[in-house]
Amino acid sequence: MTENNIIIRRIWIGIKSVSTGVGQVMFQQSAITGLIFLCGIFWGSYECGTPQVAWGALAGTIAATLAAFPVNTGCSEGRSGLWGFNGTLVGCAFPTFFAPTVFMWCSLVLCAVLSTWVRAGMNNVLGKFHINSLTFPFVLLTWIFLLASRVMDSLIPLNAAAPVSSPDGFSMASLAIYWLKGISQVFLINSWITGILFLIGLAVCSRMAAAWAMAGSAIGIAIAFLFGADASGIENGLFGFSPVLTAIAVGCVFNKPGLRSAIWTIFAVITTVFMQAATNAFLSTWELPALTAPFCVTTWMFLLPACISNGKFCK
Amino acid sequence: MTENNIIIRRIWIGIKSVSTGVGQVMFQQSAITGLIFLCGIFWGSYECGTPQVAWGALAGTIAATLAAFPVNTGCSEGRSGLWGFNGTLVGCAFPTFFAPTVFMWCSLVLCAVLSTWVRAGMNNVLGKFHINSLTFPFVLLTWIFLLASRVMDSLIPLNAAAPVSSPDGFSMASLAIYWLKGISQVFLINSWITGILFLIGLAVCSRMAAAWAMAGSAIGIAIAFLFGADASGIENGLFGFSPVLTAIAVGCVFNKPGLRSAIWTIFAVITTVFMQAATNAFLSTWELPALTAPFCVTTWMFLLPACISNGKFCK
Amino acid sequence: MTENNIIIRRIWIGIKSVSTGVGQVMFQQSAITGLIFLCGIFWGSYECGTPQVAWGALAGTIAATLAAFPVNTGCSEGRSGLWGFNGTLVGCAFPTFFAPTVFMWCSLVLCAVLSTWVRAGMNNVLGKFHINSLTFPFVLLTWIFLLASRVMDSLIPLNAAAPVSSPDGFSMASLAIYWLKGISQVFLINSWITGILFLIGLAVCSRMAAAWAMAGSAIGIAIAFLFGADASGIENGLFGFSPVLTAIAVGCVFNKPGLRSAIWTIFAVITTVFMQAATNAFLSTWELPALTAPFCVTTWMFLLPACISNGKFCK
Repeated sequence: MTENNIIIRRIWIGIKSVSTGVGQVMFQQSAITGLIFLCGIFWGSYECGTPQVAWGALAGTIAATLAAFPVNTGCSEGRSGLWGFNGTLVGCAFPTFFAPTVFMWCSLVLCAVLSTWVRAGMNNVLGKFHINSLTFPFVLLTWIFLLASRVMDSLIPLNAAAPVSSPDGFSMASLAIYWLKGISQVFLINSWITGILFLIGLAVCSRMAAAWAMAGSAIGIAIAFLFGADASGIENGLFGFSPVLTAIAVGCVFNKPGLRSAIWTIFAVITTVFMQAATNAFLSTWELPALTAPFCVTTWMFLLPACISNGKFCK
Repeated sequence: MTENNIIIRRIWIGIKSVSTGVGQVMFQQSAITGLIFLCGIFWGSYECGTPQVAWGALAGTIAATLAAFPVNTGCSEGRSGLWGFNGTLVGCAFPTFFAPTVFMWCSLVLCAVLSTWVRAGMNNVLGKFHINSLTFPFVLLTWIFLLASRVMDSLIPLNAAAPVSSPDGFSMASLAIYWLKGISQVFLINSWITGILFLIGLAVCSRMAAAWAMAGSAIGIAIAFLFGADASGIENGLFGFSPVLTAIAVGCVFNKPGLRSAIWTIFAVITTVFMQAATNAFLSTWELPALTAPFCVTTWMFLLPACISNGKFCK
Repeated sequence: MTENNIIIRRIWIGIKSVSTGVGQVMFQQSAITGLIFLCGIFWGSYECGTPQVAWGALAGTIAATLAAFPVNTGCSEGRSGLWGFNGTLVGCAFPTFFAPTVFMWCSLVLCAVLSTWVRAGMNNVLGKFHINSLTFPFVLLTWIFLLASRVMDSLIPLNAAAPVSSPDGFSMASLAIYWLKGISQVFLINSWITGILFLIGLAVCSRMAAAWAMAGSAIGIAIAFLFGADASGIENGLFGFSPVLTAIAVGCVFNKPGLRSAIWTIFAVITTVFMQAATNAFLSTWELPALTAPFCVTTWMFLLPACISNGKFCK
């Protein structure tokens, strides 16, 4: 192989790692899935008039992937896309919550880099208990920069216009839209078309994951509606995205699919909705968003007892 | 043995496990003690005009005990009552803090079930450090549902009428009443007669535990009074219940009784009072009750250094 | 050796342990360094008109050192000054935040004693992940007593007059003063002369540590200024002290000095500034000071991935 070929091959591996990284946000180790997710992000962010979100996602994934080299977490992890997915979410979040200044872009890259290092550190800790950090490095670091922006004038928080209740109310068609938005909100995108693209991306790699994503968003809306959560939150998919991730994680990533694990997963998804409501109320003190914290905490809660004690639930 | 006898025997074991579960709230592995505690709960809740608290305690203990089967934490734990005690407290707390609607009862059962699973998970983590989850699963989950109720209209928080200072002030007789209420508040009951019943229940199983409960509540009142804590809190036993639990746990459950461990326990009990005040101030932001968190945190604080390093305090 | 000589020798070891304890606040195992630090504390606290801070530091270190005997954490730790340093900081903090009443002095001694026990417990936990508790026992306990003072009238919080922006602004001379105050604020002292004394103390034991302290405070000011943090905070060294500690810890205590670890340390120091801003915003809800929490959390963050995974950064 010539020198040139080696460089081209390395770039090709890099591109695949980044694309797989986007797929790993929903636990799919597939560059094709990552590419479809990326299409969904670009569509949604241009539709919402915030193209910087899509470019942020790309920049964040690349920065996070490159940041893995100095900490040596193992190259197989990198090829599986596990270096980049926290960076993807950081890249979606920063242009959503901050005005697009040069300070925002510097912080975005720094935070994406840190997400890889915090992930390595958290996994060293949580690995002792047979769980991993999920998307929590993204959550933790984004909270830190959002809090910092309260006392640092160079980071300008965007006053997210409170989403208004749609006049459609709860018709069959609008329910379908809220349900698809629950899936698109995993990447902080508010678009039902993006939701369809994400479902296609999931199905390409795992039809079981697509099915659990659909079930997760539906159960999320149902419980939130039943227990009287705020309508605007339901309509914008904000009670859907964490249950979607919990459903995929508990239903078909960390447990073998089956009747027992399906019942277990439904309990986990229902619990995620209460966790979402609680996190919203807790963080309202600082006007912070819950991000995917409800998913992380609930998934840990449902992995710790079953998988460690004797594995009966895992087989 | 006939088929019928086996069923009857199983039911009998179940009843004993549930009753022992109530006893384990104060670390007593005794069905008789549990039964006396349950009498105290029924007396106190009917006296206060909130009978649903007693029935909630019963329902919570049963739900939590049944929830242990799918996670397989070991049947000896079940017979020792360790499956149910978090459920007992969930069952006391929900009807105290929420209006008695069908949503409250559904949440109560869900939360009691979750308490057993969270306990199994937390013990898998904390066991590595030779401590256990104590009543923290109850604390954590009750906080989550209380926070959720802020944004979910179907869970209606009861606006606990602020307890008023009694006109008796600090006479000898009224001090005795506050002291007994400190013991009854372990189960969120505000009744000195219940306090006496709880002491009897403790003494039946362990006179040492009864003695430490009495000492804990007394030290709690003394330190709270000395450092100028709010009178209404003192008068309703709210500075007593966590010190009571710390005293029993550190004084005669996790350490062998003796002079050295007695001095250690007195430090732990005093620290619990400051922890109680700090937790009250911290949680006032969300108007959340401290529950038994001050006991859990302080007990961990006093178990971690002594028991792991070289066990000199434990012998 | 006569009986008398043994007693004198023991007292001498005790004095050295206490003095080394003061040095260990900045990771220096040297009684001389501790003595120079103590001079700095006395100078600064008398200069600021709060002599009780210096006497508190002395009392806290002695109490914390004596408290180690019952928990048996190993006598070599004691001779290294590791028993006392949390107590030093407790002793600086209490007279800074509370009015000098008898209740304050009792709480100071209790809290200093507890700091040694909490350190022993936290190290038992964190040791499993190859990190240690740093100054977090001091941070945690001081927060608890500050929170407790909100509901306990006997602990009177001092309403720290909000530090005003100096009219000098950002001239070269004033920048040097802010930079030195960043170093003195490690012990909660607001005096540039004390900052110089602390640098001398560091250089006596380790010139590398002194260099990193200078770099840490400078980077702290630069990033805080660049990202628009509040001027009064910068001018009083409040964005300097945590970066100073991070720089020493990550730069030359837990990693071997070198180019790779120097780059790693600069990332850590920059991250500490954002962590400081975030902690300030988070704690403003309860009007609590950040203390050295930003240093602890950021240092853990940068020690966990590098040192555990394969140690490549540590050599």
